[in-house]
Amino acid sequence: MGEFELIRRFFTRPVRRAALGVGDDCALLAPAPGMQLAVSSDMLVEGRHFFADVDPKRLGHKALAVNLSDLAACGARPLAFTLALSLPRADAAWAGAFAQGLLALADAHQCELVGGDTTQGPLNICITVFGEVPAGQALLRSGARAGDDIYVSGSLGDARLALEALQGKLQLPPATLAAARLRLEMPQPRVALGQALRGIASSALDLSDGLLGDLGHILAQSGVGACIDTRLSSPLLAAGGDFDSELVRQCTLAGGDDYELCFTAAPERRGQVAAAAHASGTPVTHIGSVQAQAGLRLLGSEGQELVQRYASFDHFST
Amino acid sequence: MGEFELIRRFFTRPVRRAALGVGDDCALLAPAPGMQLAVSSDMLVEGRHFFADVDPKRLGHKALAVNLSDLAACGARPLAFTLALSLPRADAAWAGAFAQGLLALADAHQCELVGGDTTQGPLNICITVFGEVPAGQALLRSGARAGDDIYVSGSLGDARLALEALQGKLQLPPATLAAARLRLEMPQPRVALGQALRGIASSALDLSDGLLGDLGHILAQSGVGACIDTRLSSPLLAAGGDFDSELVRQCTLAGGDDYELCFTAAPERRGQVAAAAHASGTPVTHIGSVQAQAGLRLLGSEGQELVQRYASFDHFST
Repeated sequence: MGEFELIRRFFTRPVRRAALGVGDDCALLAPAPGMQLAVSSDMLVEGRHFFADVDPKRLGHKALAVNLSDLAACGARPLAFTLALSLPRADAAWAGAFAQGLLALADAHQCELVGGDTTQGPLNICITVFGEVPAGQALLRSGARAGDDIYVSGSLGDARLALEALQGKLQLPPATLAAARLRLEMPQPRVALGQALRGIASSALDLSDGLLGDLGHILAQSGVGACIDTRLSSPLLAAGGDFDSELVRQCTLAGGDDYELCFTAAPERRGQVAAAAHASGTPVTHIGSVQAQAGLRLLGSEGQELVQRYASFDHFST
Repeated sequence: MGEFELIRRFFTRPVRRAALGVGDDCALLAPAPGMQLAVSSDMLVEGRHFFADVDPKRLGHKALAVNLSDLAACGARPLAFTLALSLPRADAAWAGAFAQGLLALADAHQCELVGGDTTQGPLNICITVFGEVPAGQALLRSGARAGDDIYVSGSLGDARLALEALQGKLQLPPATLAAARLRLEMPQPRVALGQALRGIASSALDLSDGLLGDLGHILAQSGVGACIDTRLSSPLLAAGGDFDSELVRQCTLAGGDDYELCFTAAPERRGQVAAAAHASGTPVTHIGSVQAQAGLRLLGSEGQELVQRYASFDHFST
């Protein structure tokens, strides 16, 4: 199977919202009047972002999910995406399963595949996603103000727990491993919550490198500090029971690959935050508050300030 | 140097036209009213699209040039691009030179870097480019009609000539090699010509895989055939003198990496085509005509029909 046959067979479908889809030099998008286009790109590399033997269907899901998560963080509604794919060989079974996972998530968010590129090389998946957001209403990292509440959606740490187990660093009961692995391999982007938070959250981002490092971006860009309660635990981590409390904190605070939203909102917005969470079917947890004093302070289980540092993920230093 | 420092140092500049650039979860573009957004993605892989020892400054140029060439083929005006980069290591000298070549071309076309991704892995460059085109005026592959003239811009075959020489398949005088290599490594996207051809050309695409294969896409999508004169030769190929005529034809017709435009226009548009070429400072050559009969017929130096087949580039069959 050649390059063009692979594209035709697995990645070409009629577009419904774009003006022109796969098959020409460019795709054409026609943003609605008054809308800004939100754009984000994420590249996934074998051995770095996923294991070589990952289920290709799950990989297709994840490749788009991490991009939709960026749209969610901006409060944008998904519109379309391009897929650039470098494959060692034109493997129809692999490409078919990858496309199935990818397009199922795309359909769930009415986000159309409109173009891209296919080439031979080490496995690499680069998706650029497009969403629309009313002009001036995008959620940014720079809007947090002293006194704001800090929230996270869903739960943190399960993906890192799975990673530790898959790397042989700890043992998990089969059911726990399967559940944690699903969080690692099929993250659910918080697209509905992101849109529901427009006009409510003062800042937002999605958690990909770990809570502490990512929250640090909000603090830096907003010129503020924060204090957060580290007594966070996902149901899986909590159910483990015999997990070392330091492991639980490491996974939760600096695990990475969570694809939950972290956001801030003024205290008088608490009712609106709860309503947005309810309307989008997404649990949110109040974990701390923004402070004028620079730096990030962590409170332990007794309310004491922790001195332990938790490193965030950096592609060139880990 | 870590991931964020690399992005900050080489790839972060204030945006002038985009509403939001590098540094948040998404970039924000605000297309002008009445404009459609043209989008294209190209991925370049080491060993496939460029040699490992290529000058990183030229590589930066080429990575954006091949994407701008897709905008040119649609008649779109460049606006912005995202860059996703997988690097074996955070090499400041390499990244600095790459950024220099990339951003020089970006500046020449007022095309802003608005976001992207950086990760560790085998060298891979994925750019997604955005341009704007008045609604309904994009040049498509599907508009060629029987009787239309067929044109190409500039000259074809030099990039392939350089590739053959760099692979040791033929010897070139140093000056010829340097000139051919410049065509291979620093293609100049025909952005001004593409925009000048709006409303004049009936179809267009850019030549990346070789004239015959790429023209085949226009013919297939327009439901027509064509006859072209193969007495094409670039100044470099013509100056070679002692090149085998079959090599010249191979380079010209199926060489690939030309990044020239191939387009069609009704015969009554000949004056407008010449004016567009003049206004954009881009030579164009009339090479044949569109015919109702399916298939692509090639005329040799004596006007006879050639039977030789020229394979176009396919990433999974070559």
